[in-house]
Amino acid sequence: MKAAIVGVTGYTGIELLRIIHGHPQLSVGTIHSYSLHKHTIAEDYPHLRSLTTLPVHPFDPEMIMAENDLVFFATPAGVCKELGQVLVAADFPVIDLSGDLRLKEGAVYEAWYQKEAAPEEMLAKAYYGLPEFLPADTKGNLISNPGCYATAALLAIAPLVKENLVDPTSLILDGKSGLSGAGKTLGESSHYVNVTENMSMYKLNQHQHIPEILQQLQVWNPEMTAIQFTTSLIPVKRGIFLTAYGKVLPQVTQEQLLAAYHKVYAQAPFVRIQPAGILPQLRQVTGTNFCDIGLGLNEKTGIVTVVGVIDNLMKGASGQAIQNYNHWAGIDETAGLWTMPIYP
Amino acid sequence: MKAAIVGVTGYTGIELLRIIHGHPQLSVGTIHSYSLHKHTIAEDYPHLRSLTTLPVHPFDPEMIMAENDLVFFATPAGVCKELGQVLVAADFPVIDLSGDLRLKEGAVYEAWYQKEAAPEEMLAKAYYGLPEFLPADTKGNLISNPGCYATAALLAIAPLVKENLVDPTSLILDGKSGLSGAGKTLGESSHYVNVTENMSMYKLNQHQHIPEILQQLQVWNPEMTAIQFTTSLIPVKRGIFLTAYGKVLPQVTQEQLLAAYHKVYAQAPFVRIQPAGILPQLRQVTGTNFCDIGLGLNEKTGIVTVVGVIDNLMKGASGQAIQNYNHWAGIDETAGLWTMPIYP
Amino acid sequence: MKAAIVGVTGYTGIELLRIIHGHPQLSVGTIHSYSLHKHTIAEDYPHLRSLTTLPVHPFDPEMIMAENDLVFFATPAGVCKELGQVLVAADFPVIDLSGDLRLKEGAVYEAWYQKEAAPEEMLAKAYYGLPEFLPADTKGNLISNPGCYATAALLAIAPLVKENLVDPTSLILDGKSGLSGAGKTLGESSHYVNVTENMSMYKLNQHQHIPEILQQLQVWNPEMTAIQFTTSLIPVKRGIFLTAYGKVLPQVTQEQLLAAYHKVYAQAPFVRIQPAGILPQLRQVTGTNFCDIGLGLNEKTGIVTVVGVIDNLMKGASGQAIQNYNHWAGIDETAGLWTMPIYP
Amino acid sequence: MKAAIVGVTGYTGIELLRIIHGHPQLSVGTIHSYSLHKHTIAEDYPHLRSLTTLPVHPFDPEMIMAENDLVFFATPAGVCKELGQVLVAADFPVIDLSGDLRLKEGAVYEAWYQKEAAPEEMLAKAYYGLPEFLPADTKGNLISNPGCYATAALLAIAPLVKENLVDPTSLILDGKSGLSGAGKTLGESSHYVNVTENMSMYKLNQHQHIPEILQQLQVWNPEMTAIQFTTSLIPVKRGIFLTAYGKVLPQVTQEQLLAAYHKVYAQAPFVRIQPAGILPQLRQVTGTNFCDIGLGLNEKTGIVTVVGVIDNLMKGASGQAIQNYNHWAGIDETAGLWTMPIYP
Repeated sequence: MKAAIVGVTGYTGIELLRIIHGHPQLSVGTIHSYSLHKHTIAEDYPHLRSLTTLPVHPFDPEMIMAENDLVFFATPAGVCKELGQVLVAADFPVIDLSGDLRLKEGAVYEAWYQKEAAPEEMLAKAYYGLPEFLPADTKGNLISNPGCYATAALLAIAPLVKENLVDPTSLILDGKSGLSGAGKTLGESSHYVNVTENMSMYKLNQHQHIPEILQQLQVWNPEMTAIQFTTSLIPVKRGIFLTAYGKVLPQVTQEQLLAAYHKVYAQAPFVRIQPAGILPQLRQVTGTNFCDIGLGLNEKTGIVTVVGVIDNLMKGASGQAIQNYNHWAGIDETAGLWTMPIYP
Repeated sequence: MKAAIVGVTGYTGIELLRIIHGHPQLSVGTIHSYSLHKHTIAEDYPHLRSLTTLPVHPFDPEMIMAENDLVFFATPAGVCKELGQVLVAADFPVIDLSGDLRLKEGAVYEAWYQKEAAPEEMLAKAYYGLPEFLPADTKGNLISNPGCYATAALLAIAPLVKENLVDPTSLILDGKSGLSGAGKTLGESSHYVNVTENMSMYKLNQHQHIPEILQQLQVWNPEMTAIQFTTSLIPVKRGIFLTAYGKVLPQVTQEQLLAAYHKVYAQAPFVRIQPAGILPQLRQVTGTNFCDIGLGLNEKTGIVTVVGVIDNLMKGASGQAIQNYNHWAGIDETAGLWTMPIYP
Repeated sequence: MKAAIVGVTGYTGIELLRIIHGHPQLSVGTIHSYSLHKHTIAEDYPHLRSLTTLPVHPFDPEMIMAENDLVFFATPAGVCKELGQVLVAADFPVIDLSGDLRLKEGAVYEAWYQKEAAPEEMLAKAYYGLPEFLPADTKGNLISNPGCYATAALLAIAPLVKENLVDPTSLILDGKSGLSGAGKTLGESSHYVNVTENMSMYKLNQHQHIPEILQQLQVWNPEMTAIQFTTSLIPVKRGIFLTAYGKVLPQVTQEQLLAAYHKVYAQAPFVRIQPAGILPQLRQVTGTNFCDIGLGLNEKTGIVTVVGVIDNLMKGASGQAIQNYNHWAGIDETAGLWTMPIYP
Repeated sequence: MKAAIVGVTGYTGIELLRIIHGHPQLSVGTIHSYSLHKHTIAEDYPHLRSLTTLPVHPFDPEMIMAENDLVFFATPAGVCKELGQVLVAADFPVIDLSGDLRLKEGAVYEAWYQKEAAPEEMLAKAYYGLPEFLPADTKGNLISNPGCYATAALLAIAPLVKENLVDPTSLILDGKSGLSGAGKTLGESSHYVNVTENMSMYKLNQHQHIPEILQQLQVWNPEMTAIQFTTSLIPVKRGIFLTAYGKVLPQVTQEQLLAAYHKVYAQAPFVRIQPAGILPQLRQVTGTNFCDIGLGLNEKTGIVTVVGVIDNLMKGASGQAIQNYNHWAGIDETAGLWTMPIYP
């Protein structure tokens, strides 16, 4: 099959290009930038010189549908809900990596994103593609790819919530992200001198992934009404390091906790539960589609600490989008994603 | 006055040398290394060439007492409790930067440090020098300087506990530290290639500052029996970024919380409460003795998030040791510590 | 005495504020920003909160002259030559940290800076303040502070040129700088993600410090007509690492070379010649006004390698400006600059 | 075909594992560590968990020859010349990534490596595998893979020397390397705190790649007798940034220089000459087997500056070893190496 990429000049677009380059059953048909037009993508990204001569086109729905089998929107919030309408109307397959289609209720989107929501029928058509928890009969041509923080958070705590192991009101999610999470936008907070040797918390209680996390948690436990989730910047390029804390219910043991994680993720090739006593390091998932999870129960406080790590551009964005493509296309879930990552 | 430094070749020793170099009422008498002996300290630290020609001596209690008015032990756990005994027996003033004298009960030290405890009379004589909370009548010639994480944790949550604003069993402390916190020891975890672009949690539920934090919290609230405290490494040289979470008691507001912090630290020149809505960044305290604190209450979850940042080698070690000296000597608390830090 | 700082919100302005804060004979009278006006400097720089309450004023020559004894221009090229005219006309003492007054010929400035040159009488009045090589009888109220690269380059090779030890046409200067060298301006090249794990050469044969270096070299050897000088960015905040290569004249030995450096810098407290066989590391001058120099002669190629390191914001800018102030004021050259730097 | 890897736990061994994992015509038969034995490689490298269950064996020449078609030695200097003898004696194909077989004269090896040289017949049998300059009829079962610095240096200046464009005695090579170049060994110089915010030059005029570079240059120009080559450490994980300077012969122009590079590398898929006026950044080759080269002639000094960048673990080691394998096996030179690299 062939895929188009809209927003190819951003970090997640360029990452899609890279993954598809090595995918056995998918290739890139056309690439598009909704704002910039260059002759070839290698002019933006000199590391790609010789590897591709693909020209960058403006957004062109006719060309996309004529030359491809599906399209990825690797664009910031606000783009797919507008440009994608014509494609969705034609039932052309769309995988959107932005937040435009993740929240079922338009009003919630408008409150957290400060933008007008997508049309109601577009929201109704989309399904939320968290592959590890997709209902078996999920079908459709409009896939909303989860947010990076939401992916890390949900995978890290799903067994606690689904298996009813902790007091859900006690859950605290403390996320740390690298700089690529914020995209290519220039700002004081992304200047090298302000990032190196620094760490900062941002958007306290206002991060737009909060309602996304909560919406999915409510699928598992409809009684949950709020979630405490914070986000900090650390001086790395890639990666999310998510620490979760929760008070376990009486009599829950470390062994039970670990068993629940193994059970919930028994069929999930990209979730690697660490051996007892071992917590994952951020770096061990860089460049991969894995979510590595480790945990430890403090018997004095009754609090379980869970550490989940992902690469924000892979499992947190483009890798997961390919995983969603694989599901949608009915092929091996790991196709194109089972490469060994660069190290160190 | 003149001070000796034992352990001058370590990070906290060299930091003491730096601060005292600029202190208006204290100078360095002699410097000592318990393991290495070089002709001058500048041979270890070429940045000091021209600035000092002090020779490094082996540990020599006679020389220390003959040529100085007090001594700092800037040594790893296990050294002061042995070498310091002869000085303490002579009632020579000692400020110990290690963990040897922080825990009142020897058995607790032995459980967490895996070493034999200091003699009981030494522990009894020492006082815990957290300057912001020193009882007014504190006196004595044996000062135990708090640990870096413990300092950040205690300053960040003291008002919550002392003013009874949160459910103490809900408190969670998530600490992140730079590499200098672990000292100069070489190991895989300190190799550049394993630190850059990485983050990791270590010593889960086993960090030796846990009993130190709890001991002080129990001074403020004797009902507390445990504390959830975790520690992670981030790729920076200096600094601790401490995030604390706690469930506020009913009706507690953001304004009350902020007012409590201002009240508790009204007389604390080194604690800077950030304006409402602003959280401190790690970098703003680098090279200073400040602990900067900001907070925000989530009205949906009822959880307050507190961020406290310190420089682990300053307020977390050598700067606080000088602050303790200033107290002990009866001079201005900020003497030698009120310099502008390097930026960026 | 009291000094005004124009351009206080930039890196060199904030560094001047820091140094003067610890200077025994100079204090800050007023601070000014030619573009931004805030209530206090601590609002831009939260690390300064409590340490200063100085308000930031717009540029105001009357206020500057009324409340200060001199003024520092810590501004980009193009500012002092305009705003400074009224002060220079009044013979009010000015120390300019920009490139506006460094090149004696206006036409050369215009060719390399792509800006109109300062008025001729202003250029004629200014002297180039490289303190280690100031003629003994230098006087005047208009001081042009050298550029950061030029300082490193000139100090690293002065003995080779002055003592006639190398073929001057063989000299090659390879400079590497940290990100603060480019100031606070945002751009793709300063985005964290584009700096970390990267290195790049820029402005090949076009850097505006080339004519500045050449102008001074011609003072020492009028036959020099060109100099090969390149500049690269490395992922650090501060510092210049300058490597120089030159073919030594026949029979010149390593001992002669080292002796020449010691002779030329015998009266220069801020130039530290490293012992034979030792080259300086960048980090050993961070936060200091030192220029550390080491060298080694390759007997097979006849080429001497010289490494010179400085902190671009100290010896390369604000520290040297204070050193120029000390000279001008007739006080100890090291006043305010003899502090121990932060480490690590 | 199947390959064994000896020294699989080091950086170049793990990189070979990664490349071969994606190679269409080569797979890994057995992996060996000459010092450590673990059950599986994933215990050393948790990022590999799930991706491989290969057990690590001790060095075992019988097993290597029984289960593989060739062997890579990804070991430090001194190992292959000993352990490899039995394999070479059996004419089993060996590709050695260390310096053991690069220098044709044992005495030169002994002078620069401070180790006993390989047996003379082993040296005689080996050929130096710089793929871009392999004589067309090169054959043999013992391949010596070039050093990382030597690769960058030789590729950067080959056209200048071969096409006789510069005065060869004027050549100066200034190499900068990331930390993985020094391998996993722990030492003060690899501690994070000593690397970040630092740069240092090491082994001045003593680097063991000097004779390797010179030996190859003499193939192209037998009159060359020495080469000025220096090496510095920069705070990155991977990559070599090589700057070369040379005085061009009279009348040589920028266009001629560029044309010479295009001519020499017309058949070299992994050497990418940058467009006129553009110099490569280090990061654009990270994770690839490319050597990107750019240059600029200074008409005032008559000096050409060449920048060549490689990934020290790819083109500088394991990637080039696979390129040598591809040559040896008679398959497409780019097999397994034409992947898109991770970015950023």
